Amino acid sequence: MHKPVAVRNIHRAEQSVIDDLGSMGVATVHEAQGRVGLMKPYMRPVYDGVRLAGSAVTILAQPGDNWMVHVAIELCQPGDILVVGLTADSTDGFFGDLLAHSCMARGVKGLIIDAGVRDTLDLKEMGFPVWSKAIHSKGTVKETLGSVNVPIVCAGAYVNPGDVIVADGDGVCVVERKHAPAVRDKSKQREDAEVAKRERLQAGELGLDIYNMRGRLEEAGLVYVDSLDDLDK
Amino acid sequence: MHKPVAVRNIHRAEQSVIDDLGSMGVATVHEAQGRVGLMKPYMRPVYDGVRLAGSAVTILAQPGDNWMVHVAIELCQPGDILVVGLTADSTDGFFGDLLAHSCMARGVKGLIIDAGVRDTLDLKEMGFPVWSKAIHSKGTVKETLGSVNVPIVCAGAYVNPGDVIVADGDGVCVVERKHAPAVRDKSKQREDAEVAKRERLQAGELGLDIYNMRGRLEEAGLVYVDSLDDLDK
Amino acid sequence: MHKPVAVRNIHRAEQSVIDDLGSMGVATVHEAQGRVGLMKPYMRPVYDGVRLAGSAVTILAQPGDNWMVHVAIELCQPGDILVVGLTADSTDGFFGDLLAHSCMARGVKGLIIDAGVRDTLDLKEMGFPVWSKAIHSKGTVKETLGSVNVPIVCAGAYVNPGDVIVADGDGVCVVERKHAPAVRDKSKQREDAEVAKRERLQAGELGLDIYNMRGRLEEAGLVYVDSLDDLDK
Amino acid sequence: MHKPVAVRNIHRAEQSVIDDLGSMGVATVHEAQGRVGLMKPYMRPVYDGVRLAGSAVTILAQPGDNWMVHVAIELCQPGDILVVGLTADSTDGFFGDLLAHSCMARGVKGLIIDAGVRDTLDLKEMGFPVWSKAIHSKGTVKETLGSVNVPIVCAGAYVNPGDVIVADGDGVCVVERKHAPAVRDKSKQREDAEVAKRERLQAGELGLDIYNMRGRLEEAGLVYVDSLDDLDK
Amino acid sequence: MHKPVAVRNIHRAEQSVIDDLGSMGVATVHEAQGRVGLMKPYMRPVYDGVRLAGSAVTILAQPGDNWMVHVAIELCQPGDILVVGLTADSTDGFFGDLLAHSCMARGVKGLIIDAGVRDTLDLKEMGFPVWSKAIHSKGTVKETLGSVNVPIVCAGAYVNPGDVIVADGDGVCVVERKHAPAVRDKSKQREDAEVAKRERLQAGELGLDIYNMRGRLEEAGLVYVDSLDDLDK
Amino acid sequence: MHKPVAVRNIHRAEQSVIDDLGSMGVATVHEAQGRVGLMKPYMRPVYDGVRLAGSAVTILAQPGDNWMVHVAIELCQPGDILVVGLTADSTDGFFGDLLAHSCMARGVKGLIIDAGVRDTLDLKEMGFPVWSKAIHSKGTVKETLGSVNVPIVCAGAYVNPGDVIVADGDGVCVVERKHAPAVRDKSKQREDAEVAKRERLQAGELGLDIYNMRGRLEEAGLVYVDSLDDLDK
Repeated sequence: MHKPVAVRNIHRAEQSVIDDLGSMGVATVHEAQGRVGLMKPYMRPVYDGVRLAGSAVTILAQPGDNWMVHVAIELCQPGDILVVGLTADSTDGFFGDLLAHSCMARGVKGLIIDAGVRDTLDLKEMGFPVWSKAIHSKGTVKETLGSVNVPIVCAGAYVNPGDVIVADGDGVCVVERKHAPAVRDKSKQREDAEVAKRERLQAGELGLDIYNMRGRLEEAGLVYVDSLDDLDK
Repeated sequence: MHKPVAVRNIHRAEQSVIDDLGSMGVATVHEAQGRVGLMKPYMRPVYDGVRLAGSAVTILAQPGDNWMVHVAIELCQPGDILVVGLTADSTDGFFGDLLAHSCMARGVKGLIIDAGVRDTLDLKEMGFPVWSKAIHSKGTVKETLGSVNVPIVCAGAYVNPGDVIVADGDGVCVVERKHAPAVRDKSKQREDAEVAKRERLQAGELGLDIYNMRGRLEEAGLVYVDSLDDLDK
Repeated sequence: MHKPVAVRNIHRAEQSVIDDLGSMGVATVHEAQGRVGLMKPYMRPVYDGVRLAGSAVTILAQPGDNWMVHVAIELCQPGDILVVGLTADSTDGFFGDLLAHSCMARGVKGLIIDAGVRDTLDLKEMGFPVWSKAIHSKGTVKETLGSVNVPIVCAGAYVNPGDVIVADGDGVCVVERKHAPAVRDKSKQREDAEVAKRERLQAGELGLDIYNMRGRLEEAGLVYVDSLDDLDK
Repeated sequence: MHKPVAVRNIHRAEQSVIDDLGSMGVATVHEAQGRVGLMKPYMRPVYDGVRLAGSAVTILAQPGDNWMVHVAIELCQPGDILVVGLTADSTDGFFGDLLAHSCMARGVKGLIIDAGVRDTLDLKEMGFPVWSKAIHSKGTVKETLGSVNVPIVCAGAYVNPGDVIVADGDGVCVVERKHAPAVRDKSKQREDAEVAKRERLQAGELGLDIYNMRGRLEEAGLVYVDSLDDLDK
Repeated sequence: MHKPVAVRNIHRAEQSVIDDLGSMGVATVHEAQGRVGLMKPYMRPVYDGVRLAGSAVTILAQPGDNWMVHVAIELCQPGDILVVGLTADSTDGFFGDLLAHSCMARGVKGLIIDAGVRDTLDLKEMGFPVWSKAIHSKGTVKETLGSVNVPIVCAGAYVNPGDVIVADGDGVCVVERKHAPAVRDKSKQREDAEVAKRERLQAGELGLDIYNMRGRLEEAGLVYVDSLDDLDK
Repeated sequence: MHKPVAVRNIHRAEQSVIDDLGSMGVATVHEAQGRVGLMKPYMRPVYDGVRLAGSAVTILAQPGDNWMVHVAIELCQPGDILVVGLTADSTDGFFGDLLAHSCMARGVKGLIIDAGVRDTLDLKEMGFPVWSKAIHSKGTVKETLGSVNVPIVCAGAYVNPGDVIVADGDGVCVVERKHAPAVRDKSKQREDAEVAKRERLQAGELGLDIYNMRGRLEEAGLVYVDSLDDLDK
C-alpha cells in the first residue's frame, strides 16, 4: 500500500557509465538493452538540440500537485535528473523558471515529467532541458503528498530511483542501474558495428546485400514483377 | 537488459483474499491501497456488467505479435488472469475466440491487454471477460519473442506476476501480492464505513455536514452570496 | 478575477418549458436554437437510453478536486442538474455512488461533468444519469476552492447557472434560460415540420425532390455520368 | 483533378458472395484477403449486435456538408451500403433519422461514415445499422459539392464503388469487388480450418502444440526458468 | 437563440494595461487572475519566440467556413487580435498568407484560432503571430454565417469581445476587460515577489525553507527514510 | 487479395512538372487540384523549413516491420520520395540515419511515413527531409512481407506509385501522375491570381470588397449592429 515517503539515499551508476550512455543517445541505448525502457513518444523536449544523461531522482506526484518536487530537489546530487510520474493524467504546468533555478543551483541537470511545464522561454534561455507531455500555464497546488525516490511509472516506463535516464530529440529511455555498464558496452559495440555499415550504405551498397536479405525475402514469398499491370494477370 | 524468458512458477495471493478483493470492486480497492496501481481510463471492458479478480500471469509482448500469449497459457493455473503489456503502442487484435477457448479450457478467468482484441461478439457469448485499449480485427504475427511472468507496465500500471488484478466497469486496478491481505482489510473497513454514510446521504443529510466541511470551506475563503448580481459589486 | 464564491439563488426556466425541451431531444433543440450551445462529442452517457432536461447548477472545479460538488448539492432544488466545468483537463473520478445518493435525496436529476466518474454500475442501478468525459476510479481531494453557480465552460459550451440542459444519447446541449421558451417553440415547429417529411421519405420520396435540390445541384456544377469509366474521357 | 460528379451505374458483386462474406464476419474476411482493407479501429457501431454486408455506394463529402448523401440515395439499389469519406476531418452529425428513413425506404442496408451521426436512439429503434467515428448533434449544411460513386478513402481504407463492405462488432472491412468470390472461398477455408482447432483448444490442447511452436521458440532463443529469482543470477 | 450578427463597436482596455500584461506573459497573468481564462494546451504558436497582447475581436465561425474572418477584419482597430471559436471541431486551414496581409495592413497584431491555418512559412516570414490547434492546407468555404464580436468559447476559454488576450510560448490566456487593470496590478506584484524568491533559489536556498513547507509536510504525514530497503520493513 | 509483391518499374511525371509543383507548395497545389489528396494534419516535418517534390515510390508495410523499406530503396531512382503506408497504426521508429544514408546515396530525396522515425538530429544534420506521424526510438523488425510500388493509403490519402508528392511546412499533398501537368498549370494560374489580390490586401483593401461579399452576406442574413447591447433588444 502506498504511504507517502521520501527516501534520502539512493544508489547511482558510475559517472563514466552515465556519460558514455549519454554520448550515444536514446536510439542506440534502447536497441542495446533489448528494446525495453522507452517512454511513450508523446514525451517531447521543450527545446531542441539537447542530449542528456543522469541518475533518476523519482517523484510520484498527484495530478495538479507539485509539492513533492520541492521535497525531491533537496535530495538531489549534482548530475541527477528529476523524473516525475503521476497517479493520474494531468497536463498542468508542474514546473517553471523558479523551480528550474532551484534545480540548477543544486546541480540537477534536467527534468522528465509525464505532465506539463511552463515558462518554456525561460527554460530555454537558462539552458535547463525538459522533456514533458505538455506545455501549459495552469499552475499546481501543494496540498497532497506523493513520494520521492520510490519506483514509479513515467510515460509508460518503469523507473527505479538511481536508474540512468538518457534523453535526446528521439525521446527518453530508462536504463536499469545494475545493467548500465553492460548496456554501455553493448551500445558501444552497436555503435562501432554501425560505422562500417554506414560507410557501405553511403557508398551506395544496399541493405538488401549488406544484411543478406534476398534469400529470406524470396523464401518468405516476395515476388518481383516488372509492372503494376502484371499484378492482376 | 531484456532477454526473452518464460518463468514457470509464480507466487499467488490466497484465493479468499482474491475473492474478497473482487467482491469489493475497483474504486474501493484503489482507494484502500492509497490510490496507486490504477490503469489508464482508456482500458474498457469489451462487454458490460462483469467484475473480475485473479492472479496476474504477465506477458511482455512486441507490438503486433501475440506469440507470447501461447507461451503464457501453458503456464496459467485456474483462476489466473492474463495481463499483456507491450514494448510500444499497438491497437492490433492480439486475441480472439480461439485463444479465449484455450484460456477457458485452462481455467483462465480473463484478459487485460494494452492493445486490441477481436471476435468480440464471441467473447461476450462465451462469457470470457476482456479489458482492452481497442477493438480491431487486424491480426498479429508470431515472429518476435517477448517474455512471460516478468514485471511489466500495462496501461500505465506496474504489474508483477502474481499480483492481484481487480477489474470491473470502472477500470482495472493492480494490487501488489504481498499487500493484498492488508488491502483487502482496508477495503472492507472502507466499505463498512460507507454503509453508514450512504444511509445518511440517502436520508438527505449533506456531505457538508457529514464530513464537517463548513468550517474548512470558510477558512479556505469560500464566500456565499445571494445572487450572481452581487458578484461584481 | 476569479474569487471562490457560492451563489445561493439562481433563476430557473419554467418547468413546462424544461419538460418540453427534454421531450424533444438534443438534436432538435440544438437545430432550433441556431446550432450553438452543444458540448463536445466526447461527452457520453455512462449508460444508454436516458433523456434528461433540467436547470443547470454550475460548478467551477479544480482538476482532481470535487470539494465544490458538496457545496453545490446544498444549493440545488428538485429538478436541477449539476454541470461541472474544470479549470484544466482531468479524467479523475469526481463522482460516485455516495454523491449520487446525496443528489437523489435532494431531487437532483443528473450530472454533466467534463471529467471522470466512478461506481458506474451503481449509477446505472440507481438510475442516476451521468454524461462524462471519462470513467475512472481515481478519486479526488477536497483541498482547493472553486465556485458554485458562476458562468462556466463545460466541454466547450458556455453555461450560466439556470440555463436549461438537455441531454440524451446524442450528447448534451445548453439552452440559455431567457431563450428557453422561444427555443421550445422553434423546436416544436421543427418537430412538426419533420413529421410530414418523415412520412414522405418513408414512402420512398427522395430528399432531392422534397427539398428541391436538383436545380441547385446543377447550378453548383454537379455532373451526372453513367459510369466511372466515363470520368477520365 | 477532382470535379464533382455523380456516377449512376456501378458494378456489384453477386448477392450470394456478399451474403457469404457477411455471414463470416470482419475478422475472418480480413485475414482471408491478406490483412488489407480494414478501416481504423475508431469506427464503431452506433448500437451493438449487428453484422452487415453489402455493396458500397461511395460518397466523397466535404467536412460539415451532407449534400451528397441525398444525391447518393437516389443511386442506391436494395442491399447497398452508403460509405462516406471526407476531404478533411469532421465529427459533425451528417446523418439522422430522416435520412435513415429515406435509406430504408430505398432498401439501403446501412451506413459507414468517417464522421458523426445523430438521432442514435431512433437509428437503433428503426434497426438501421451505422458505423461512425463519432456521435454528435451538430448538423451539416448543403452548400458544397462532393462526388458519388468515385473511389474514396474512408477511415484509412480505400473503397471503390461496388466493393463489398463487411461490418460487425469488430469493425469494418472492404473487399475489392473483383476479389470477392476468391475472398469468400478463402474465408470459408479459414473458417473450416478453425473448427478443428477450436475443438482441440476447447479440449485443453495448447496452441504451442497444435501449431508446433516449441521448436521455433527455442530456436528464437526463448529460455524457460523456474522462478523470477533465477533471472538475475 | 443564435442569429448571425456583426457588432461594430466594442470596448477595449487601456493600451498601457494591455502592454503591461503582454510584457509579463501568460503564466504570470494566469496566476494573477486566479487561474481562470486559460485556453487548452493544444493551442500552440505556429512559430516560436513571440509574445503578444491585444484586444479580442471575436469570431464565431462554422467548421470549414472562414467567411466571418473577412467580416471581422473590417471591424478591427490597430492592436486588435482576432480570436476564432467554432461551433464544432475542425482542423481545416481557415487562414493563410492573404488574410495575414490583410490583417497586417489593418494593424491587426495576431490570430488565435481553435482550428487550422496554412502558409505557415509565409506567416513566419511576415512576422504575423498565430496560435492554432492545427496546421493544415485544407481550405475553407464562404457559405455559412457566423457572428463577429459576440461572446465565444475558444479552446475551452470564454472570450468576450474586447477582452485582453495574452499569448506566448506557454499558451493563450484571456483577461476580462473590466478586470484587466486589477490583473495587471496583481501580475506586477507577483512578478516583484518572484524576484526575491528567484534570487534565493539561485543561491541554492530550498523551496522547502523559503515557503516553510517542512512543518506542513510532516503534519500531512510525509515520512523520511534513509533507504528504499527500509520501506517494507 | 493482397499478395506481397515488389514492382520494379513505375511511370513518373516529367521532372519539370514535379519541380514546378514543388516550387508552389502544398496549399496552392491542393487548392488547384480541387481540394483532394491531402494527408492528415498529424503528418509533420521532422525539421522545419524544407519544401519537397518528387515521384512516389510506395511501400505497404506491416506495423513495426521496416523490411520493405530495404526492398524499395533498390527500386528508387534519383528524385524519388519514399511513401510508407501501414496496414495498422504504429508509432515505431521505422527509419533512422542508416536508411537515410542509403537513400541519399541512391538519390532519394525524402521520406513520407505514416509511422515513427528516429535519429532525428542526424536526419536534420544530413539534410534528409522527413514527414512522419511520430518520433520514436522503438526499432522495427524484418519478419513480415508487405509490398513495394502498389497503391497505398498513407495518412488518409490514396497514393499510386509514380504520383507526385509535394510536401512543406503545411503538410503533404498527393498529385495523381496523369493530372500533374494540369494541376501544375492550375496552380500557376492560382498563384498569379493571388499576386494582384495580395497587393490589394497589403494596400489595406478589404476582402469584403475584393471578393464582392457585402451583397451575399446581406442576402444570407448577416445583420450589423452598433453594439453588443443592441443584441437582446
